[in-house]
Amino acid sequence: MRQLQDQISVPTRGRRLYDITPQVLNWASQSGLNNGLLTLYIQHTSASLLINENYDSDVLVDMEAFFARLVPDGDPLFIHTVEGPDDMPAHVRSALTQTSISIPFLNGKVALGQWQGIFLYEHRTMSNQRRVLLTLIGE
Amino acid sequence: MRQLQDQISVPTRGRRLYDITPQVLNWASQSGLNNGLLTLYIQHTSASLLINENYDSDVLVDMEAFFARLVPDGDPLFIHTVEGPDDMPAHVRSALTQTSISIPFLNGKVALGQWQGIFLYEHRTMSNQRRVLLTLIGE
Amino acid sequence: MRQLQDQISVPTRGRRLYDITPQVLNWASQSGLNNGLLTLYIQHTSASLLINENYDSDVLVDMEAFFARLVPDGDPLFIHTVEGPDDMPAHVRSALTQTSISIPFLNGKVALGQWQGIFLYEHRTMSNQRRVLLTLIGE
Repeated sequence: MRQLQDQISVPTRGRRLYDITPQVLNWASQSGLNNGLLTLYIQHTSASLLINENYDSDVLVDMEAFFARLVPDGDPLFIHTVEGPDDMPAHVRSALTQTSISIPFLNGKVALGQWQGIFLYEHRTMSNQRRVLLTLIGE
Repeated sequence: MRQLQDQISVPTRGRRLYDITPQVLNWASQSGLNNGLLTLYIQHTSASLLINENYDSDVLVDMEAFFARLVPDGDPLFIHTVEGPDDMPAHVRSALTQTSISIPFLNGKVALGQWQGIFLYEHRTMSNQRRVLLTLIGE
Repeated sequence: MRQLQDQISVPTRGRRLYDITPQVLNWASQSGLNNGLLTLYIQHTSASLLINENYDSDVLVDMEAFFARLVPDGDPLFIHTVEGPDDMPAHVRSALTQTSISIPFLNGKVALGQWQGIFLYEHRTMSNQRRVLLTLIGE
């Protein structure tokens, strides 16, 4: 068995879901491995990872609408406000979604379901440069 | 080190938590490996995975009651409604729970805690056939 | 490739986030491996794992305030109340956060982002002894 590790950098411009499926699939397909396990890890606490429907973009709009209502910006509940009204909500949104996701790699392909895409969820309203680490273990 | 990969198919008949612990433990115990890491991955965006208490079935009832209240069907917030009032809530519930879970495999056993079971959480109200991929890496 | 497995025990005294980063980093740094994947798994359903900001402790206070409001103790919705008003909320909080997290191990270091810490989230109000399993696969 072997392992490959790399990182991808994702520029974000505001709060929304960014489809990183093509970059991830492209990297994995060039690994030379046939079968194994791909793990994604995001090195941030105000952006997260999410497997979500990749077909109807309304799903992305609705997902954001739900989280915006569940964790409102500027909520008077929060005392950690020095970095802006969207900062603590970004930490909570990250806690409610994923920091790491592991997906099987089968016959040279990342085994996503038919309607699944891999998304980086930016929770801050400002622009950021986000880093996702990739680890593929297999043979 | 070696790896084994397989899939299990779970028929669901409506929205609730389905205990898949026996199938998963049975598969892992026949792997011939002694120690390693077992990763479960669900290939869907309207059903998810959850480690939950396996003892009192009231916990399953309460869990569903909580999610039904938190993410109400037919919420006017949502615009992705073409597949029914439970479809977008199913995507949100999936985002709030897990798509992949990794559990250590120790001395030929999946190292669940005493009260832990592995559940497939069906979030759609209709019947479905769900696919969970299993990857065991170890020796 | 090789694997190492171990467990750490975390005494908790009430509901809050406990920083377990030092123990985890110390264990991994003594593994003798250079690169791989570290997976944490918690063997409980009323305590969970969370990658969270490690810098401003107000973030921990706010995180708990959010979950306390989202999943109120003694909620009349719940029927599983025999173990106390904080028990079913503890299961729900665990479902909303993580049971397992996988982090890359790069050049002999757990590849946490600059502001990331690893936390055990105790959701019960009483004292507990919690067990976290560590698996490091790499070379």
